[in-house]
Amino acid sequence: MSKRAITIAPSIMCADLCNLESGIKEIEKVGLDTLHVDVIDGSFSPSMPLGIDTIKQLRKITNMNFDVHIMSNNNEFFIQEMINIGVQQITFHVESGIHVDRCLQLIKKSGIKAGVALNPSTPLSVLDHILPECDVVLLMLINPGFATDKNEKQVPYAVKKVEDLDQLIKAQQLNTKIEVDGRVSLDTIPALVTAGADILVAGSTSLFIPHRSLTDNKVLVEEAIQQGLLAGVK
Amino acid sequence: MSKRAITIAPSIMCADLCNLESGIKEIEKVGLDTLHVDVIDGSFSPSMPLGIDTIKQLRKITNMNFDVHIMSNNNEFFIQEMINIGVQQITFHVESGIHVDRCLQLIKKSGIKAGVALNPSTPLSVLDHILPECDVVLLMLINPGFATDKNEKQVPYAVKKVEDLDQLIKAQQLNTKIEVDGRVSLDTIPALVTAGADILVAGSTSLFIPHRSLTDNKVLVEEAIQQGLLAGVK
Amino acid sequence: MSKRAITIAPSIMCADLCNLESGIKEIEKVGLDTLHVDVIDGSFSPSMPLGIDTIKQLRKITNMNFDVHIMSNNNEFFIQEMINIGVQQITFHVESGIHVDRCLQLIKKSGIKAGVALNPSTPLSVLDHILPECDVVLLMLINPGFATDKNEKQVPYAVKKVEDLDQLIKAQQLNTKIEVDGRVSLDTIPALVTAGADILVAGSTSLFIPHRSLTDNKVLVEEAIQQGLLAGVK
Amino acid sequence: MSKRAITIAPSIMCADLCNLESGIKEIEKVGLDTLHVDVIDGSFSPSMPLGIDTIKQLRKITNMNFDVHIMSNNNEFFIQEMINIGVQQITFHVESGIHVDRCLQLIKKSGIKAGVALNPSTPLSVLDHILPECDVVLLMLINPGFATDKNEKQVPYAVKKVEDLDQLIKAQQLNTKIEVDGRVSLDTIPALVTAGADILVAGSTSLFIPHRSLTDNKVLVEEAIQQGLLAGVK
Amino acid sequence: MSKRAITIAPSIMCADLCNLESGIKEIEKVGLDTLHVDVIDGSFSPSMPLGIDTIKQLRKITNMNFDVHIMSNNNEFFIQEMINIGVQQITFHVESGIHVDRCLQLIKKSGIKAGVALNPSTPLSVLDHILPECDVVLLMLINPGFATDKNEKQVPYAVKKVEDLDQLIKAQQLNTKIEVDGRVSLDTIPALVTAGADILVAGSTSLFIPHRSLTDNKVLVEEAIQQGLLAGVK
Amino acid sequence: MSKRAITIAPSIMCADLCNLESGIKEIEKVGLDTLHVDVIDGSFSPSMPLGIDTIKQLRKITNMNFDVHIMSNNNEFFIQEMINIGVQQITFHVESGIHVDRCLQLIKKSGIKAGVALNPSTPLSVLDHILPECDVVLLMLINPGFATDKNEKQVPYAVKKVEDLDQLIKAQQLNTKIEVDGRVSLDTIPALVTAGADILVAGSTSLFIPHRSLTDNKVLVEEAIQQGLLAGVK
Repeated sequence: MSKRAITIAPSIMCADLCNLESGIKEIEKVGLDTLHVDVIDGSFSPSMPLGIDTIKQLRKITNMNFDVHIMSNNNEFFIQEMINIGVQQITFHVESGIHVDRCLQLIKKSGIKAGVALNPSTPLSVLDHILPECDVVLLMLINPGFATDKNEKQVPYAVKKVEDLDQLIKAQQLNTKIEVDGRVSLDTIPALVTAGADILVAGSTSLFIPHRSLTDNKVLVEEAIQQGLLAGVK
Repeated sequence: MSKRAITIAPSIMCADLCNLESGIKEIEKVGLDTLHVDVIDGSFSPSMPLGIDTIKQLRKITNMNFDVHIMSNNNEFFIQEMINIGVQQITFHVESGIHVDRCLQLIKKSGIKAGVALNPSTPLSVLDHILPECDVVLLMLINPGFATDKNEKQVPYAVKKVEDLDQLIKAQQLNTKIEVDGRVSLDTIPALVTAGADILVAGSTSLFIPHRSLTDNKVLVEEAIQQGLLAGVK
Repeated sequence: MSKRAITIAPSIMCADLCNLESGIKEIEKVGLDTLHVDVIDGSFSPSMPLGIDTIKQLRKITNMNFDVHIMSNNNEFFIQEMINIGVQQITFHVESGIHVDRCLQLIKKSGIKAGVALNPSTPLSVLDHILPECDVVLLMLINPGFATDKNEKQVPYAVKKVEDLDQLIKAQQLNTKIEVDGRVSLDTIPALVTAGADILVAGSTSLFIPHRSLTDNKVLVEEAIQQGLLAGVK
Repeated sequence: MSKRAITIAPSIMCADLCNLESGIKEIEKVGLDTLHVDVIDGSFSPSMPLGIDTIKQLRKITNMNFDVHIMSNNNEFFIQEMINIGVQQITFHVESGIHVDRCLQLIKKSGIKAGVALNPSTPLSVLDHILPECDVVLLMLINPGFATDKNEKQVPYAVKKVEDLDQLIKAQQLNTKIEVDGRVSLDTIPALVTAGADILVAGSTSLFIPHRSLTDNKVLVEEAIQQGLLAGVK
Repeated sequence: MSKRAITIAPSIMCADLCNLESGIKEIEKVGLDTLHVDVIDGSFSPSMPLGIDTIKQLRKITNMNFDVHIMSNNNEFFIQEMINIGVQQITFHVESGIHVDRCLQLIKKSGIKAGVALNPSTPLSVLDHILPECDVVLLMLINPGFATDKNEKQVPYAVKKVEDLDQLIKAQQLNTKIEVDGRVSLDTIPALVTAGADILVAGSTSLFIPHRSLTDNKVLVEEAIQQGLLAGVK
Repeated sequence: MSKRAITIAPSIMCADLCNLESGIKEIEKVGLDTLHVDVIDGSFSPSMPLGIDTIKQLRKITNMNFDVHIMSNNNEFFIQEMINIGVQQITFHVESGIHVDRCLQLIKKSGIKAGVALNPSTPLSVLDHILPECDVVLLMLINPGFATDKNEKQVPYAVKKVEDLDQLIKAQQLNTKIEVDGRVSLDTIPALVTAGADILVAGSTSLFIPHRSLTDNKVLVEEAIQQGLLAGVK
């Protein structure tokens, strides 16, 4: 049996935004301790789901780990805001800024876990020098921030990209975690976990599948994870 | 006695962002029907208080009029998003875009009240041709979107600017409303109302003064308004 | 009878872009000597009708005066390109650059007529110091470069803005020409000419009304101009 | 004998822009069915050869395949315009946008062939994940959009880059086509074809060599292609 | 005799940049106490004369008042840097930022004299509300930051603009100073002083006329000033 | 004994900026012939140390080789300015522009040594095609242009990156020089030289260590270099 610990990170975007307190309490109650928070500024992509003040107030009512994914053309501003709020992990996109190492250092000096996020098409060569500096690498498996139809699928090269990253990490004997985001569903979880994913951003196709309780969905997610872990054990 | 109707528009930013539904119900209960919604994108100024998805979900749980104030360098994107959500009034800043008439038309074609917002230093000459096209003009009385200390005051020329705009509107016999935003406090309301303000964005220095009920604060705001109205009657 | 000379400037955009040579020859044949050329870069507004190379080749096959209207966020680049091509008049938008006097000088040093173009909402106060430096001021009467429905009308303040500009020019005893652009139709020409317009950008609602010959349309345009001139003579 | 089919794609830029209809008919007459259309916006590089409206009108008078090469800092706008016009293939530059997979999907969902274009210096690692998603990869062999002297040569690494890409495609057993653009001359065609080029953008150094008929030039181009194909057969 | 005190502010740009210490000592020796420092970032206009570190080191070797003129598209960054260095006066351009009042406050809170700078074509209406907040208004009389030939002249409306600003200041009974910059020469000083200029940026056409000592030039400048003051006294 | 020639390039930033002439004479006197000149525009990163006019005047008083490192978002402007001044080598950042080959050609056509500069995190794959075109590659070993504390260290992957680049150069049998910049100190020089560095940008942790003469520091730097060279000889 595998000893790998997989983290389920429910996306704040799937909560009831008019009743966040009760939503987050429910998430806590089922035993999840990491909250995935998407910060998009409308300029990186045509979306601005949540505001900074909302995150700031959320911080005061829960002890969950905030795993923040910044999608912005102004990484430094949002990184600083998130550090001030007191989050536990920050990833930012390598495509939208030229001072990548600088941003990683900014986060790490604050004692927070740091990492980069990659758009689907972004090559892993951007990690050539900085992989050892990353606590986590977030792979987007859909294009972030575009209003898409519900039937949209992950990019066809999703699993392959996770595998390739997993090999890079193992080749360098690092502890860098792989976070996957975008249609991480009951159907896709097993293969992603087998491929090496450590943190699963869970949304409407897994933990928040409608017409079923959070508890029931969590059981199904865990089963999918187990399936993936077992397949990876030879 | 004056017949001018003054609108108190509580700012959504002063509500409990983790419990918006109960917050908005409380506002409805004291008899207010207009909600002021600030949309800032972090690029216009270093602030991004609220997200679009939050506004979208709010729309579903209340019939209040949404009076949206867009502070963005991409007016067209946010105007279209707000039209889609179904808000009742949109103002956008003239300083951050060059197609001002185009944006006004975009809003008005959707049957929504339209207007422009002006930074403190922006001259009223920007209204030379479009004032008759505006249902409302929002005057910022502090600089929007900067984290400022609590003791910050309105710009010294606040009341004079309201008076000047009021004269322009009357000279052209228009019904354009004057909205004022920024430290619209119990202390400043009387002079602003006397000067011609029609819509008061109400925040932490008026309707949301701490340690007092919304009902009690509302009574004080209404008294300040009356004081202003009476001073304006000769 | 009035002695004012009104210029009809047919828009190149209304010609058959796959047969420009024959189109321009036809325009020459009816006795028009000024061609209005719109240069839009897709960034100023969502349109890029014509390319620079097309204008360059056009220059070689006709002696018409090229009256170029630049709609760009990079005025200096396009001004320089148009100077190189050998056009006769250049207007550029004041809203999209901060070195307005510099651009005017750049054009004038090349011996070309120079002027600024104003979006509908732009106040005439932008001309406070530079009006004497302008051979022409182009007033946009619709919002430039947006795909609009055919029934779109001029902004309601179109005629008033022409009158206001005409007064400024007369008050300073200048010879600056007023050029009007946007739905300059048989219906609107009389009032625009009476108000003071000197150059009429002629498109699909005047010189290029479908199902009628260029010659016939020109007669109608001239009649509309005469009507406007006579109304202005008291 | 080789069975590889090489496409000659004459550049619209070499046609007589004042007589496009007759120019395109002549191209059709010599039996070519693909037209290469450069869309440059003056911001990506200092050039704006052709306009959108010209392409729109061209679309109505010919059934040739339009192979559009977008050089812009606003890929999504131009991609959407080209889709609306009804072109057959679109390539866009990976250097000027961060949502590469998103743009590929946008094109492919419209049933159009999609691909990316690479500046000379851009490494092939940008294709690491998306090569299987590309119907075509366009390699620029000169720097696109700069006014250059006639004697400018291809970058010295042109042929090597085609070979490297060809190997990547074969290693993954894909059908992705290689398109080459920039000084694709009678002299350079043989080596490029041998290296693996499938689509040749043909301009003033091949199909449009002055003082010779299109028919005669086409014969010479085909001979150069044959030479390249034969050299590649071992 | 007039009691108006006119300040001569020698431009640091005219000093020997390889021997700034001796240059500034010479300026001090002739009894001038204000140094005009141009900060241009290459983006506002194609010029970047001096660096921040140079100003920082200059600050340590002289007690002269530093009168800094920022020409940048990022006013806040350079304002903050200049505050940190310890300068005495900062002007910034209204054309390149939308938070003008905010920037004025930022400077004034630091106990430094604050003002705005205007390009030649910029209308005085930008001062409608903020003139009382300005310790100084700098009027550019040439276009700032363009490499220009030595024979370039001031804009023809230079003196008129100074007069108009002077009237605005007097009408509001303010103490705002008028600073003039650009070809402020022995020839133009008299009329500028008569018109109301208080601070003269002195460069190669006044204080630094070649082949004459600083002392001699200063005498000539003072004579020109006297001439201007006397002409203004009726 | 090694025959590799290592260049010590003292950074102009460490000179006394108020007495550059005497500073540069002192540098010449100790026998150094290359001056490293940082050009940062405040937009690439929050720093603008030196101005163009300062470099222009420096050029006139020394025959040292100017090795210019451009850190800008507008490479072409600064490259052209440096060419005009008459410098001997220019490197520019690949991260801030999309026409990398074009910029290299621009420099090389002027007979100047050309190269690219890489931020710490930038992968060497950006050199895949252009390495043979580069006379030099500059590797930043700290993040350029951020005000950092004096104890800041090089990125942990500094030496490894130099080694990797050295291998690429040797594998292609090129003469490309490796320039290293950022905390190139007495402590780090040996390993950097062993790894393959050819040009050392020398600043406050090597040639300009306080309280010691330039001559003494130079001796120590040369010893560190020898140590590195010897370690590399097996």
